Amino acid sequence: MKNILIIGCGLLGSSILRAVNFRKTSKNVYVYEKSKKNISIVKKLKIKCKILKNLNNISIKFDLIVLCTHMSQYSRIIPKVNKFIKHKTILTDVGSTKELSFKEVKKKLKKNIVWIPSHPITGSEVSGPQHGDKNLFKNKWCILIKQKKINKTYLSKLKSFWKNLGSKIIFMNSKQHDTIFSITSHLPHLVAYNLVKTATDFEKQKKYGLIKFSAGGLRDFSRIAASNEIMWRDIFFNNKKNMIPAINLFIKNLQSFKKDITIKKSNKILKKLVDSKKVRKKIISLKQDINKPDFGRSY
Amino acid sequence: MKNILIIGCGLLGSSILRAVNFRKTSKNVYVYEKSKKNISIVKKLKIKCKILKNLNNISIKFDLIVLCTHMSQYSRIIPKVNKFIKHKTILTDVGSTKELSFKEVKKKLKKNIVWIPSHPITGSEVSGPQHGDKNLFKNKWCILIKQKKINKTYLSKLKSFWKNLGSKIIFMNSKQHDTIFSITSHLPHLVAYNLVKTATDFEKQKKYGLIKFSAGGLRDFSRIAASNEIMWRDIFFNNKKNMIPAINLFIKNLQSFKKDITIKKSNKILKKLVDSKKVRKKIISLKQDINKPDFGRSY
Repeated sequence: MKNILIIGCGLLGSSILRAVNFRKTSKNVYVYEKSKKNISIVKKLKIKCKILKNLNNISIKFDLIVLCTHMSQYSRIIPKVNKFIKHKTILTDVGSTKELSFKEVKKKLKKNIVWIPSHPITGSEVSGPQHGDKNLFKNKWCILIKQKKINKTYLSKLKSFWKNLGSKIIFMNSKQHDTIFSITSHLPHLVAYNLVKTATDFEKQKKYGLIKFSAGGLRDFSRIAASNEIMWRDIFFNNKKNMIPAINLFIKNLQSFKKDITIKKSNKILKKLVDSKKVRKKIISLKQDINKPDFGRSY
Repeated sequence: MKNILIIGCGLLGSSILRAVNFRKTSKNVYVYEKSKKNISIVKKLKIKCKILKNLNNISIKFDLIVLCTHMSQYSRIIPKVNKFIKHKTILTDVGSTKELSFKEVKKKLKKNIVWIPSHPITGSEVSGPQHGDKNLFKNKWCILIKQKKINKTYLSKLKSFWKNLGSKIIFMNSKQHDTIFSITSHLPHLVAYNLVKTATDFEKQKKYGLIKFSAGGLRDFSRIAASNEIMWRDIFFNNKKNMIPAINLFIKNLQSFKKDITIKKSNKILKKLVDSKKVRKKIISLKQDINKPDFGRSY
């Protein structure tokens, strides 16, 4: 690809920028980022790119535009993109929910823009371009949303783009995507936030300083509960449709656990705990986590 | 101390053994372990200790006995300990709940045995002496249960024992201990088990292979949900009194989260998420977790 435009240069955007530079997959990478702080970080770190000051009066012919802003920004950005795109261009994103944003962007986009959403399954609890990493996508899944009537040439171009950054590609439709990630990602984050909230409520109630004893389990949850708040609000709202039944299923299971504890149902509890261990093994065998106790963490 | 007896030589027991050997805090360390597999691992790894084949006809004068078995084994072991203890000996343990076991052991013990429970806040999701670590206690909290009428000389001896292994000591009563750890450890584990259960239920229902996408959050929970099942059953049962209200508070907060998502209460959600981030910062500043994104994990 000759010209790529990255809109939003935080953790994900700057990681794409670094990966594209490192792997030399594009001649020119343009960046648009509205935060002055982020721009100054990119400049300070001397990450090679062409910074666009605004999205008006642009005459560059882009092969690919990657939206790396919060999803709630899309509706503000699409009209601007519409203005400067004159010919066939692929538009993708890195957002964590797909069903709603797919429809909303599609509705607003000019017809010559080929909208194929992406979701690289990677990230971190930290934000900002200073935390970007050229290897963020290496050996990680990247989901491409394949809806009916999609142009296969462009799909294949986008697939190559992510493959060149090290990703493993899977195609899904947006509905399937949002259902799966409501369970593997969105519910875990909600539960982590809720656990930290419960601990702080409890600390206030009982006036015990309990956070200092968080090494017994709470600390693991606090990591993902430190993720970017705008990003996660957008995810919870956009995937409301799947979040509500996921929360309901979680509560139903928790009520059953509570009952087993109350009446001391040893066999039922043991089965649940043993089954969990098998899932951990599967996750490791699928190379979705490090095969070292305690995440290999040492401090 | 001249003679120490470790009963149960799994992850914790073998870590105490290694730490005592490494720091040379006792002349002789005796080990009683009923699992032949664990015994053969200890022998194979050549961890220095004197292995007792059974707890009958013992004439050694122990200064300290450390129970490192599952808590549900205490009632089986105490009568044996009563038989061979002839003089003042400190008995401690490493169990994760205190109120019930404190009373139950106290009721069964001979009077010349000084029962002071301990709880080192450390461990791992892996079990067995092969995973033991001489530094497992280094810079970690160790809670000593200080009840009324305790002999200060023995308390101070036990404190020195743990300090010599690298622990930082805090005194609590058993009630306070169980309340605090129901939130910082027991509830997080239950929630992790419940999340993995919910994901597998969902996978069965929808027939999607979703575990392979667990890098988005689920994998972190699966680590603590891979912890030893007997240990955690014992903890949930022994701390039922605090677990039930903790689960109730968690569900109440989750219902409120669900409501905020349903009616898209942006400010309320953002406040919860921002507050969580502060807790993560506090946990890191209290040195309860590693100060690196993603636990410094790389794979």
